[in-house]
Amino acid sequence: MIIIVTGMPGSGKSKIVWEFARRGIPHVSMGDVVREEAERRGIPKTKEGMAKVSIRLRQELGQNAVAKLTVPKVRELLEKHRVVIIDGVRSLDEIGTFRSAFPDEEIVIFAVHTPPRQRFKRLRERGRSDDPQSWEDFEERDWKELKFGIGNVIAMADYMIVNDGPKEEYEKKVKELVERILAEH
Amino acid sequence: MIIIVTGMPGSGKSKIVWEFARRGIPHVSMGDVVREEAERRGIPKTKEGMAKVSIRLRQELGQNAVAKLTVPKVRELLEKHRVVIIDGVRSLDEIGTFRSAFPDEEIVIFAVHTPPRQRFKRLRERGRSDDPQSWEDFEERDWKELKFGIGNVIAMADYMIVNDGPKEEYEKKVKELVERILAEH
Repeated sequence: MIIIVTGMPGSGKSKIVWEFARRGIPHVSMGDVVREEAERRGIPKTKEGMAKVSIRLRQELGQNAVAKLTVPKVRELLEKHRVVIIDGVRSLDEIGTFRSAFPDEEIVIFAVHTPPRQRFKRLRERGRSDDPQSWEDFEERDWKELKFGIGNVIAMADYMIVNDGPKEEYEKKVKELVERILAEH
Repeated sequence: MIIIVTGMPGSGKSKIVWEFARRGIPHVSMGDVVREEAERRGIPKTKEGMAKVSIRLRQELGQNAVAKLTVPKVRELLEKHRVVIIDGVRSLDEIGTFRSAFPDEEIVIFAVHTPPRQRFKRLRERGRSDDPQSWEDFEERDWKELKFGIGNVIAMADYMIVNDGPKEEYEKKVKELVERILAEH
């Protein structure tokens, strides 16, 4: 089984990936796939460098380039694990790439939704180097995801958690849903 | 204040609109706006007729034609009501039309998410004339919404309810959130 973990920036995806990880379930980050490609090509892993790699990859491998590069990594993990997580899917078209590559695997979408204002607050507090400094930065980053079609992935989620309350409440919801998904599939 | 109620077909939007309505809060259905236009033009209100009206409207008024026709109806209601609901928005661009038309009104997005399999089951049970007979019909209808960009509206929701449990549970969640929104704004 492949579980696609999706959500807008700052929504709380990493908590979900971590909750699977501590049960021994591995994940492939599509962001890491791009970062590895940058390294392999000697392109600096800055915001501009990453954009450059993404554009080149799409020129070479087509629209779903990153998904295509992710497939062999997922295949390798599926040899030893019943469940593999994919983090960083941005469109239903990318999910199509996974469906074609793994016709016999069940693929489920697990989304987390956090209202924009709360995501902005959390991203500012997190303060990673690529996190938004202003509301305009935030909107620009959101738009980067939305124009690929991440909204449609979220709209078609098989499981969804709303993360708009206290941290402990969200952690509890994630734990319960991770257990439920693993029990149901 | 304008509240945009959104969700995929069969997700449970009408329950939300109804919960506002019984508190005296009026709504404008963008679907009704298209149906009225069909009537005005003497075009039959069949699936084909409605598609024809939609295409003509976009030719005449541009991409956000239905939103533009909705504006005067919302404006009229806002003269007598503090809160108006808009039902049937399909893209962030349409919300942009409302933001431009009502620069002084707060606009919030209220989404409901139901997993695809459950929406399909509910739509089959509902059995309206335009409801899907098969999974293929269902996917086609979903795609009609998704290609406009409804996923992005859902992804940017200020409030979201997950409707994946018993009916009574959903009704309770809607009631509570409607009361919370009216209290908070």
